[in-house]
Amino acid sequence: MAGRIFRALGDNGINVAAIAQGSSERSISAVVATHDESKALNAIHDEFFLSKTKSVHLWLAGTGLIGKTLLKQLKRQHPILLRDYGIDVKLLGVANSRKMCHEPHEADTLPMDDPLAVDGIPSDLDSFVSACIASNLPNSIFVDCSAHDAPTEHYRELLSNSVAVVTPNKRAFSREYSFYELLNQLGTTRRTPLLYETCVGAALPVLSTLQDLIKSGDTILRIEAILSGSLSFIFNTMRQNGILFSEAVMEAKKRGFTEPDPRDDLSGMDVARKVLILARNAGIPMEQSDIRLESLLPQSAQECSVETFINQLPSADESFRARIADASANDQALFFSATIDCTSRAASIGLESFAKNHPFCALSGADNMIAFTTARYREQPLVVQGPGAGAEVTAAGVFADIMRAIR
Amino acid sequence: MAGRIFRALGDNGINVAAIAQGSSERSISAVVATHDESKALNAIHDEFFLSKTKSVHLWLAGTGLIGKTLLKQLKRQHPILLRDYGIDVKLLGVANSRKMCHEPHEADTLPMDDPLAVDGIPSDLDSFVSACIASNLPNSIFVDCSAHDAPTEHYRELLSNSVAVVTPNKRAFSREYSFYELLNQLGTTRRTPLLYETCVGAALPVLSTLQDLIKSGDTILRIEAILSGSLSFIFNTMRQNGILFSEAVMEAKKRGFTEPDPRDDLSGMDVARKVLILARNAGIPMEQSDIRLESLLPQSAQECSVETFINQLPSADESFRARIADASANDQALFFSATIDCTSRAASIGLESFAKNHPFCALSGADNMIAFTTARYREQPLVVQGPGAGAEVTAAGVFADIMRAIR
Repeated sequence: MAGRIFRALGDNGINVAAIAQGSSERSISAVVATHDESKALNAIHDEFFLSKTKSVHLWLAGTGLIGKTLLKQLKRQHPILLRDYGIDVKLLGVANSRKMCHEPHEADTLPMDDPLAVDGIPSDLDSFVSACIASNLPNSIFVDCSAHDAPTEHYRELLSNSVAVVTPNKRAFSREYSFYELLNQLGTTRRTPLLYETCVGAALPVLSTLQDLIKSGDTILRIEAILSGSLSFIFNTMRQNGILFSEAVMEAKKRGFTEPDPRDDLSGMDVARKVLILARNAGIPMEQSDIRLESLLPQSAQECSVETFINQLPSADESFRARIADASANDQALFFSATIDCTSRAASIGLESFAKNHPFCALSGADNMIAFTTARYREQPLVVQGPGAGAEVTAAGVFADIMRAIR
Repeated sequence: MAGRIFRALGDNGINVAAIAQGSSERSISAVVATHDESKALNAIHDEFFLSKTKSVHLWLAGTGLIGKTLLKQLKRQHPILLRDYGIDVKLLGVANSRKMCHEPHEADTLPMDDPLAVDGIPSDLDSFVSACIASNLPNSIFVDCSAHDAPTEHYRELLSNSVAVVTPNKRAFSREYSFYELLNQLGTTRRTPLLYETCVGAALPVLSTLQDLIKSGDTILRIEAILSGSLSFIFNTMRQNGILFSEAVMEAKKRGFTEPDPRDDLSGMDVARKVLILARNAGIPMEQSDIRLESLLPQSAQECSVETFINQLPSADESFRARIADASANDQALFFSATIDCTSRAASIGLESFAKNHPFCALSGADNMIAFTTARYREQPLVVQGPGAGAEVTAAGVFADIMRAIR
């Protein structure tokens, strides 16, 4: 019995001031701090009375498309997680930039469908995070589904207090390297999960594959990647359907692959953030400014209105047509791709030509592709391919990270 | 302090008969069974005196190419695991079908390079497994790098005694379904890792990706896969270089992609075992006999000598040439592929034609490819591609599973 209490309390970082147990194993007494009382009771209750069930306590920041989709998926999957894996996911707090809502007691969990629809008080992230830490429940996970900087400022405090952090928000990991390193070290030393697989390629297994390769002693030589769904679609469509650049951009916009302002995609800035996270995960202490980025936008295009920009798109058609024809004449194809050369520790993003037998040439639609060339995968790379954006798959990837974060 | 002792002892399943601690937190006393003494000391030592280091205790069965390569990789990576991850991998036992060697005390670990070269007693798997369980050390992992049935008979006993099992050996998971289910349930209920990612596609992230999809509530609709490196090479080379079937088989044999007797590859039996494991991991309680397997070998070819078989290969050339030409006339290409239809719960293996824009058509060399079509990845599948065989990558995948098995 004592062994199981040890695990239940120890796993949840509960400090015990004094403990006594007789050799009868009929009773055991422990003294814990008042603020650990409910956490200790919960942990022991989970261990003994519902011994096959593990409660997981979620705090969600951000209720945009990804956050909402995640809640929908969690709600639908709840009975199956409980039955097949003994996992009971409970929603204790939800906040967006306007409203928030959280429950002081585990018994009063929030509904998964639209928890902020009726109730809620004006949002205050500081007090939301404080409530999360103060709730002091085992298996607490802070899920940041926002795209803002504000929640990332609290990651340190959360990790320091044994609250796991799961997020598709690239902000924290594409800031200065020292901040990235600090967070990851904090996760390691506190043995508290910090998971952000969905920052690169949504739910595609990219960062986890990279970590597996590195931990098992492989040497990463080169990472080649198509990391923008919209740009993938634009160049695949131009190549496969022989249409003009401006037509491909408009088709991508029509299908919802681009941001409302297509310049946000064409600038390559979003790809640059993903490349930075990939390079850092490959062990390169790189800053954003170290990446050589060839934007698809001339400086002039960045200052006009969206309408003016779209009207001017055809002026770029001839230049793209010529580059595609040039590549084709050399039996190659053109992609907006990223290359991380791990030997020279350099990264570049821009239009590149690849031979017709390169894995990129098999791309279609808005797929992402990430090819790892390593000491072990030297002749043929390890390749991961598939849709790398969209609310359903991104939320699913966050969901998978939540499962991984459960201790 | 008590919290950390709780975790250290509880994590390792050590039962405590009596414990007493004063409120000074200067001392704590615990009574454990004699056979738990060194395990408890080790666990507490790791937690406090080398608090950043976690000892991992390996028992290796099988010293063929994969086992030897794994030891080489572990030896080379040892200082880095210690420095960057605080993991100290120790080899306590090694056995092959002739010799074995194991150390009763953690202090006397075996050398990673050729541990059976000098010492060793005649092999006896029963006593090897008993020694592993009796050593009763925290983070014990039994690694089965054999291709035999014998070690798999001990998985139950090992898992029941909190010893994790990591293996590239397909035997245990391609037997009758009830045995597969029993092992996996034992792993779940004992919270003891049972990891066999390398059974399908070596180190490619196949089973872990499938598990992530399922846990997060996706519905697997279809899995299409090229799971044999040798057959992938044979059909890719015929398609890309326009050579005959017999020539492609001989080229694959020359490059070491086939077994010494190419019929072992051409029969499709190895692919069938992988398909069974994939289907079961996708939630289908399937038996080997449920798989529709179209072998590339006529019955007559199965009874002659290797030489006779190889001499007769050209007699099949015309039939393959015609099938490839047929496919090509329909703008398709021919692959020896497996399809698992998760809706109808059926699996088939054989020669199939695929449209030119199917991901398979981008294959080259001896690559494997696994494409998951799911409710979320419905229009474009999630694809994993790369070399799916070979000692280096298989051992690396086993290594990654060992890292995952560390608690």
